Amino acid sequence: MPNVSFIPHAAARVSAVLAQLKDYLGDKVSTNQSVCEAHSHGEALELARLPAAVVFAETTEDVSTVLGICHGAYVPVVAFGAGTSVEGHVTPPEHAVSLDLSRMTGVLQVNAEDMDCRVQAGLTRQELNIRLRDTGLFFPVDPGGEATLGGMCATRASGTAAVHYGTMKENVLGLTVVMANGEVIKTGGRVRKSSTGYDLTSLFIGSEGTLGIITEVQLRLHGIPEQLSAAICQFENLEDAVRTAVEVIQAGVPIARVELMDDVQMAASIRYSGLDELRPITTLFFEFAGAPASVREQVEVTEALAGDNNGLGFAWADTPDERARLWKARHNAFWAVKALYPGFRVISTDCIVPISQLASLIVGVKADIEASGLQVAILGHVGDGNFHTLIMTEDTPEGSAKALELDRKIVARALALDGSCSGEHGVGVGKLEFLEREHGAQSLEVMRTLKVALDPRNILNPGKLLPEGLAYIG
Amino acid sequence: MPNVSFIPHAAARVSAVLAQLKDYLGDKVSTNQSVCEAHSHGEALELARLPAAVVFAETTEDVSTVLGICHGAYVPVVAFGAGTSVEGHVTPPEHAVSLDLSRMTGVLQVNAEDMDCRVQAGLTRQELNIRLRDTGLFFPVDPGGEATLGGMCATRASGTAAVHYGTMKENVLGLTVVMANGEVIKTGGRVRKSSTGYDLTSLFIGSEGTLGIITEVQLRLHGIPEQLSAAICQFENLEDAVRTAVEVIQAGVPIARVELMDDVQMAASIRYSGLDELRPITTLFFEFAGAPASVREQVEVTEALAGDNNGLGFAWADTPDERARLWKARHNAFWAVKALYPGFRVISTDCIVPISQLASLIVGVKADIEASGLQVAILGHVGDGNFHTLIMTEDTPEGSAKALELDRKIVARALALDGSCSGEHGVGVGKLEFLEREHGAQSLEVMRTLKVALDPRNILNPGKLLPEGLAYIG
Repeated sequence: MPNVSFIPHAAARVSAVLAQLKDYLGDKVSTNQSVCEAHSHGEALELARLPAAVVFAETTEDVSTVLGICHGAYVPVVAFGAGTSVEGHVTPPEHAVSLDLSRMTGVLQVNAEDMDCRVQAGLTRQELNIRLRDTGLFFPVDPGGEATLGGMCATRASGTAAVHYGTMKENVLGLTVVMANGEVIKTGGRVRKSSTGYDLTSLFIGSEGTLGIITEVQLRLHGIPEQLSAAICQFENLEDAVRTAVEVIQAGVPIARVELMDDVQMAASIRYSGLDELRPITTLFFEFAGAPASVREQVEVTEALAGDNNGLGFAWADTPDERARLWKARHNAFWAVKALYPGFRVISTDCIVPISQLASLIVGVKADIEASGLQVAILGHVGDGNFHTLIMTEDTPEGSAKALELDRKIVARALALDGSCSGEHGVGVGKLEFLEREHGAQSLEVMRTLKVALDPRNILNPGKLLPEGLAYIG
Repeated sequence: MPNVSFIPHAAARVSAVLAQLKDYLGDKVSTNQSVCEAHSHGEALELARLPAAVVFAETTEDVSTVLGICHGAYVPVVAFGAGTSVEGHVTPPEHAVSLDLSRMTGVLQVNAEDMDCRVQAGLTRQELNIRLRDTGLFFPVDPGGEATLGGMCATRASGTAAVHYGTMKENVLGLTVVMANGEVIKTGGRVRKSSTGYDLTSLFIGSEGTLGIITEVQLRLHGIPEQLSAAICQFENLEDAVRTAVEVIQAGVPIARVELMDDVQMAASIRYSGLDELRPITTLFFEFAGAPASVREQVEVTEALAGDNNGLGFAWADTPDERARLWKARHNAFWAVKALYPGFRVISTDCIVPISQLASLIVGVKADIEASGLQVAILGHVGDGNFHTLIMTEDTPEGSAKALELDRKIVARALALDGSCSGEHGVGVGKLEFLEREHGAQSLEVMRTLKVALDPRNILNPGKLLPEGLAYIG
């Protein structure tokens, strides 16, 4: 650590920095109260804290300027995209600058023949897919929310399509990253594989803005499938539905999506999304994609497996509108639950286990839910072994404590089954307490060593991703 | 850096260490001349250097013991698996210990339902697949040689099946790694995705033994495809063959393998592997895998594209024996070329470009070959944009210089087309000179920072992967 004994108090440092930032970046710097409020939190509202200022970066150079200035003065910086993260990732540290990248929406190149493109980090995936419309290509990673691609990199996002296309980890070829001191590096490239040097791209994917700030992303694209079919199948029994999903994966069916919603979730979604043709019982949502004969083959295997597990028959959504309605209902699951008890908080949990453990995990979780007396919906990306619960609770300290207690039980179950405490939401501050149990103290020491090496002044989103503790002494 | 002024000379240090190693590890330590010679090089014989001793580790604890002792005495350690690397990765640094992991061949767990397994790092992929025989599962990454899975992790290996199944990067779920000071960490786990913490697994994959020594590997497995078909198609014209492969990929055909061998390579392989039914002209080797209808669909599209590009018709290898013969001929390409001119050296190059650039690259390379006056075969994993040349040269300094000059021209062409200087062989010492041009000085600074942070005494395979230079000053 450099000698910090002559560094002025944090509040004084950030004031000095604001003057410098305005000199260099003019009206891209805002201290407006409502702008600061909008940057005080992501979707975890309870963790809100105001930044000292918000800077709206328009270029990689802007980001470099901000970091150079803040680095000089030991002022923390947190990157902000669409503010859709749920674990407190974008909540500013104390006396920090929030660096908003949402103006960086350029599509810098589309290489249709190579199925890749380069975009600025503030572009959302929805907007990218609109701009790709004429190419026959699309970017498949779909976390549901209207997230930016930079934010999706930073949290290693995935979602409903990961079972087929993989997560951000598998779909990013390279990055432009601004390091803590403002230095700009490029990682990876355009080739499909390479074995030259450390995999810096993967190091920044999932680093939650704590090692560098991502400003450009080289993405893999995929051909829009020749045929897309969606279907739902309902089950009287939760375990039968889980077993069906597991067996579909084990049979090697290259299914595009397979999502589960339990009875509580279905009741909420039927009401919220008008799915009146459905019953409030456990339901699997399927999507099949590919060439026609392959899709037919996938459907046959899947229908047979669902039948063997007491599925109540397939209902098909054959038109694009029907499919859109179904997937919109799935993506609105959170809001459907939220609408059940206005004024309640809804806390989304997120864990993942090897798929063979999923049925026993969910059975255990159901028992925990019953014991808690809370209203809880279960839904998830069952094809990956990843599932969420949505815990409804009164917006009081007691309510939150009760929900957190249930969350802890669920995570403990998942970790005991070789699982992870987050399949896709990330650590932020919400999952810090589980990290040592999941990774072990030694691995965390190595992670802290990387953090200290790349951000020795600890200005990049401090307090996120890594619980406090020792670094590795090589 | 720690103060090293009281550290004795390197030769004295390693002698002291040998006594300690023998105390702890007994006859697992060898200084036998022929054992040391066998560990003096991989397949790049010209870089040979004798280690001071070879230690045959049998457990992770053995590896930890060796590193603990060597770390204390600033003695370098190079991990050795099957010795199949081609860029000098396993050549010992001066006054170093070679740490042989080839006795670590345990299969520690097979989770058939989750399609994963955990193995010790010294197991070869062939042996793993033999042991998996009764499960219906296999590990697909296939670099050709009889490599160990730990070595394949360390070099981020890939090979003929990467176009469908991905490289080691996509097929490793977690690792056990011994750090420079002997500390043991676990990275990753068994889940299919996770967003908790830095991706240490990816950091060690491709790190060539310079950040830690991998002792266990958690691998993704895949179901053995219901149907496998192999075919070859010959072309009068190299560009037509390349264009066919590129169009197959661009059409989204989920092809299992697509390999190219040019006229020079085919002449050698026909003679060496008895492929007398074939002509010495450019040839594509295809493999199709999957459920029957999907395979039929893939074949139809591929045959049509080959026909459009003047392919001379498909010849099918329908029996397992016929397929094995074909793929054995492909894997023996190096030896086929080697047999052409006994006593000559054969130098294998390795570069990769975005697939849209492959045809123009190969045309340019053909011109370079012509201008060089050398005998050179072209072959490669064209579905990835990855290709090799095999340069035949007299085993003299002049011969090597001429071959290296041609290699430099090929790499320069690839880098100018957004390529990488190695798709799969790795950096070792052979590719060091190209790294700055490929990644830029700033990225190399960041890589060096990681190296210094995790191996401050520079004992882990020093001199490999990273050209000398500055580290990043955060």
